[in-house]
Amino acid sequence: MKSNLDALFYPTSVAVIGASRQPGSVGHSLLANLIDSRFQGIIYPVNPRAKGILGLKCYSSVLEIPDPIDLAVIIVPAPVVNQILEECGQKGIPAAVIISAGFKEIGGAGLKREKEIKQTAAKYNIALIGPNCLGLINTDQRVSLNATFGTQFPRPGNISFISQSGALCVAVLDYAKEANIGFAKFISMGNKAGLTENELLRYLQHDEQTEVILMYLEDLVNGREFMSIAREITSHKSHPKPIIALKAGRTLVGARAASSHTGSMAGSDKVYDAIFQQCGVLRGETLEEVFDYVKAFAHQPLPQGNNVVIITNSGGPGILATDSCIAHGLNVLPLPEKARTKLRQALPPTVSLNNPIDLIAEAQAETYAAALDILLAESAVHSALVILTPTAFTRVEEIAQVIVRVAKRRRKPVVCCFLGVYDVSRGIEILEENGLPDYRFPESAARVLAQLTKFSWWVKRPSTKVKKYPVKKGAARRILRQVQAQGRNFLLEPEAYQVLQAYGFPVVKFKVASSEAEAVQAAEEIGYPVVLKVVSPNIIHKFDVGGVRLDLHTAEEVKQAYQEIIENCRRKVPRAQLTGIIVEEMVPTGQEVILGMNRDEQFGPILMFGLGGIYVEALEDVTFRLAPIRELTASRMISQTKAYKILQGFRGGPQYDVPAIEDCLKRLSQLVTDLAEIKELDINPLRVFEKGQGCLVIDARIILES
Amino acid sequence: MKSNLDALFYPTSVAVIGASRQPGSVGHSLLANLIDSRFQGIIYPVNPRAKGILGLKCYSSVLEIPDPIDLAVIIVPAPVVNQILEECGQKGIPAAVIISAGFKEIGGAGLKREKEIKQTAAKYNIALIGPNCLGLINTDQRVSLNATFGTQFPRPGNISFISQSGALCVAVLDYAKEANIGFAKFISMGNKAGLTENELLRYLQHDEQTEVILMYLEDLVNGREFMSIAREITSHKSHPKPIIALKAGRTLVGARAASSHTGSMAGSDKVYDAIFQQCGVLRGETLEEVFDYVKAFAHQPLPQGNNVVIITNSGGPGILATDSCIAHGLNVLPLPEKARTKLRQALPPTVSLNNPIDLIAEAQAETYAAALDILLAESAVHSALVILTPTAFTRVEEIAQVIVRVAKRRRKPVVCCFLGVYDVSRGIEILEENGLPDYRFPESAARVLAQLTKFSWWVKRPSTKVKKYPVKKGAARRILRQVQAQGRNFLLEPEAYQVLQAYGFPVVKFKVASSEAEAVQAAEEIGYPVVLKVVSPNIIHKFDVGGVRLDLHTAEEVKQAYQEIIENCRRKVPRAQLTGIIVEEMVPTGQEVILGMNRDEQFGPILMFGLGGIYVEALEDVTFRLAPIRELTASRMISQTKAYKILQGFRGGPQYDVPAIEDCLKRLSQLVTDLAEIKELDINPLRVFEKGQGCLVIDARIILES
Repeated sequence: MKSNLDALFYPTSVAVIGASRQPGSVGHSLLANLIDSRFQGIIYPVNPRAKGILGLKCYSSVLEIPDPIDLAVIIVPAPVVNQILEECGQKGIPAAVIISAGFKEIGGAGLKREKEIKQTAAKYNIALIGPNCLGLINTDQRVSLNATFGTQFPRPGNISFISQSGALCVAVLDYAKEANIGFAKFISMGNKAGLTENELLRYLQHDEQTEVILMYLEDLVNGREFMSIAREITSHKSHPKPIIALKAGRTLVGARAASSHTGSMAGSDKVYDAIFQQCGVLRGETLEEVFDYVKAFAHQPLPQGNNVVIITNSGGPGILATDSCIAHGLNVLPLPEKARTKLRQALPPTVSLNNPIDLIAEAQAETYAAALDILLAESAVHSALVILTPTAFTRVEEIAQVIVRVAKRRRKPVVCCFLGVYDVSRGIEILEENGLPDYRFPESAARVLAQLTKFSWWVKRPSTKVKKYPVKKGAARRILRQVQAQGRNFLLEPEAYQVLQAYGFPVVKFKVASSEAEAVQAAEEIGYPVVLKVVSPNIIHKFDVGGVRLDLHTAEEVKQAYQEIIENCRRKVPRAQLTGIIVEEMVPTGQEVILGMNRDEQFGPILMFGLGGIYVEALEDVTFRLAPIRELTASRMISQTKAYKILQGFRGGPQYDVPAIEDCLKRLSQLVTDLAEIKELDINPLRVFEKGQGCLVIDARIILES
Repeated sequence: MKSNLDALFYPTSVAVIGASRQPGSVGHSLLANLIDSRFQGIIYPVNPRAKGILGLKCYSSVLEIPDPIDLAVIIVPAPVVNQILEECGQKGIPAAVIISAGFKEIGGAGLKREKEIKQTAAKYNIALIGPNCLGLINTDQRVSLNATFGTQFPRPGNISFISQSGALCVAVLDYAKEANIGFAKFISMGNKAGLTENELLRYLQHDEQTEVILMYLEDLVNGREFMSIAREITSHKSHPKPIIALKAGRTLVGARAASSHTGSMAGSDKVYDAIFQQCGVLRGETLEEVFDYVKAFAHQPLPQGNNVVIITNSGGPGILATDSCIAHGLNVLPLPEKARTKLRQALPPTVSLNNPIDLIAEAQAETYAAALDILLAESAVHSALVILTPTAFTRVEEIAQVIVRVAKRRRKPVVCCFLGVYDVSRGIEILEENGLPDYRFPESAARVLAQLTKFSWWVKRPSTKVKKYPVKKGAARRILRQVQAQGRNFLLEPEAYQVLQAYGFPVVKFKVASSEAEAVQAAEEIGYPVVLKVVSPNIIHKFDVGGVRLDLHTAEEVKQAYQEIIENCRRKVPRAQLTGIIVEEMVPTGQEVILGMNRDEQFGPILMFGLGGIYVEALEDVTFRLAPIRELTASRMISQTKAYKILQGFRGGPQYDVPAIEDCLKRLSQLVTDLAEIKELDINPLRVFEKGQGCLVIDARIILES
């Protein structure tokens, strides 16, 4: 039996409710589009005031249509939409697209209307797209459905597009026409009152026509569900599908605009970056970028590594491409010796065997073919960027044909940049008809290769799991319960240490003392030198009130420090309850890093990693991920900070124990996943020692949900 | 009398030496282009084997032409070029363009040939373009000169283009045709054997047809001269001309390609960034960016500030534009209250009065006109970005017309983004015919506005001078001479301190002691606590050999430290000559910064500024400028680092004494300009105290030219 979503995308009958006789109106354009796209099913216009439109017999209501209907397209004014949807439900129509605007996006009465249609769709289990959208396209020739009021019907292709903006749909269709890009499914989601990106992604995952998914998003309805579906799609063993997303509302003011536009809350952009990273979604910065990407992903194989060769017949564009490849992390490798020997035999002596390899203005098809073929045959070469700036004598079409032939034979990705002096348009057509993308600018071609390479890395990455450590969850929870029982929403330092210890974190040696004698005894047990810090529910900034003494070497110094701390605190915070004094070992120097967690209302626990120090904070050089994290994610959270090179041994400095940090990140992930009552957690700093020497938590702060 | 460059750009007669009868050949294409562009002077083809070409009588040599010739265009094979140029010299031809390749770019014999033509051009004082170039265009209808072998002759316009790559010329002409961009002068420089970017810039500075200068560069022949000319052009009081540069060879490998392409050394990219910053040249990242920029600079006024309003009729593109504006440093300001009141009266109630202001899909010309006019009338609004995604009912042309009208009336920059659903091409034509640039993507439009704003800031910046401090130059030079006399090429720490003191730097209190007693006496004079450091021509890493003792509070501690340092150094570096021990005051804590200078072979002294610490180094958060620097430059060197916010008081931290750092930077600039024998200088660190408290040099290193 057909699912409701099948009815949506593959209807055998469509009712157009609100079909209109007035040319130019939405109700007229949509009906005309359905007819003009040669819809393979039957169309039933519904309009109580018309007998027929565009040659089709009209019905006054869906309830009057004698046959079953798969899909209702609704274009009536907002106030009557719910009533129409109710009729569709009664008629047993499994799928509907509401084009009409005047819902959530206008606030007030619109909010109420949106709630009503949600309820109605749920009541009748209708697969609903919209409201406030452009509609839906399925180019599959078995159905050939254009249920939009746009002016373009794209040619069939293997890209599907899900958009949260109707205007962007239109821009994409327009661009696609010019760039010869074909689409499979094309969905304008509108307000997402029924189906959201998640159900649609799930459908496209199993859609045979779809090989590349393009999305324009302003928010995610359920970020965690999105992550899990997207990850499945991009990580499929035999047939991963790339997802390319343009997420608007990046900046704060941008987010404000997003919220006034869709009436939905836009999450913080850093969280979206984390989500996309974790599920292998490629995020484009601009509309243009994502267009460029889909063009390549639609037909090019993925490169097996990041070594690129640049083949050109003019210097300037070659240099621009090189700059751009390197800026995007590709490796413009020196030509392998074996290839150089072969090239020397095959190419004119004037060609200098560097990368970029400049074939000189006179190069013809044989020269391009030989260079490309010899280089792509090398196992060390993973992709090629081919530039052509023809002279009057250049046989552009021939060159395009040989590039196509060699690229197909070698099964490695090739992107092109044919710069027009003399007319190159026929050459570009030959390339693109054969799935080789051509870009107007060498820099765009380089950026695209970088994305193909990035996705290839993702697809081939080692599969890792969320590590489960044996921990004392019960012990940790007991501490939290005690704190809550005392009416506090924060943990004292020793309590936070105990929670972390229960989860196996390496914590500095410590003891809590309530007297000078106990402090000395603690120091003797821990071993000198030690640190003393006040423990008090009322003192947060211990340093500021003189509540800390460092580097104490003798019993005498400890006693004196104990007294001083008590006196300082009594004097500066007279009402503070002093729980005791914590005695800690004085830890050797090392590199300080910060581990943190913040529980987001929408997305749950977000982990943070960064190096310690005010610079890192000022330069915002930190990474975020949603917990729980897999092994590989922990490692990438660290290696993706710019300051990572310091941990690796920067300028003769020591190499630090990165695996120890990874271990802490994974334990933190488990801790905050297990204990939902923790709202915020900071390990600041975690002091990291040289490779193999581990790390130690030397300060920690835990805040509970209140 | 005409200058040689006038003869080049405004010839009354042109000899085409190497004109050819073979269609498609360079010698034929070029002659045909001259004829087809309706050159206003007389053309003399030179070809000993032809009687006539394309209807023109041929001469066997320039020497045979009975009339005087202004410009020779040379297309003969490389080996005979110099002989031809010699004949041109004998004939008294003041200007020549050598199209032929086979010179510096091929190395070997080509290098020799290039040297010969340089000498010949110098001997006869010929204004020479090339060799190895596409040629030259002047669209001025008084001459209408197309001396290139390209296929496009651009329409007249106010942009001039200077290119170091022929292929890029071709790409630019091609793009210009599509984008309706007009050019004034168009010059393919080739190998720059004669005229370079500097002479050409100087010419364009005074060229009435040129209002915007676009450059593609792979290197600069004389960076300092370039800076001074470019600065004059961009800073002209009444008529500044923007210069937009695409500099290739950004990355190291890119630079390698540049050098194999042009045979010229490409300087370090950071230096180019510094040069462009200092002379107001706007650097584009990609070919596409610079195209986008010139389109706006050609006709739009400059904004008076960075407040932008975004007017749209569709949400998604508005959000994308907002994100991009903010990412580029523009201020998407909340709409001013006064404007809101007016807008509320003028616009339909459905329009929400935010920025971006969403006029909703149905908006017509009156709505656009009212919104744009009311907003541009506000003094707080400096520019506008207008987006249109039309419906079937949108009167696109009318909207384009009112945008043009309002923009002209309000004399504020407006950039547009008409997204095509329904056909918007006629609307875009109306915009561009009237000098309003339209971009395919909202993000491009935002980026362009940011560049207009940046150039406006440059034009209006306060004019500052290079400050001349009264310094003891003689004293400083004496120290350097003494060092050189001792056969050293580096200064000892006390010597470096003295040089800096001679230039008025605030240096830590110090004295050099040769005995325990002297050290104690020095400490008493300086005041406790003090620091002791070894002074030795053989010890560079003082800390590593135990040559430093910090925080000494008593005479006893000083004596002991003195002995320890001597013993440590004797033991670890037995052969080191110990000049003495430097006694310094122990300086209070503060923020550490680094000031440095490196004398570049090509560009001279390059100053560097950055905050201290390994993070800044790892993240490469430093700025460079060529000395001497003006007052404003010193301030921007500091404020353009990302870590600058730390100096301003980050997260409740103290505000530091930035003017004191600026003072040091300016003194450093004077020092390294005065004393060319200094090769490298590092003040690391300069310790900076809170606002008003100044700063102190607490370590310095000076290396001399050897």
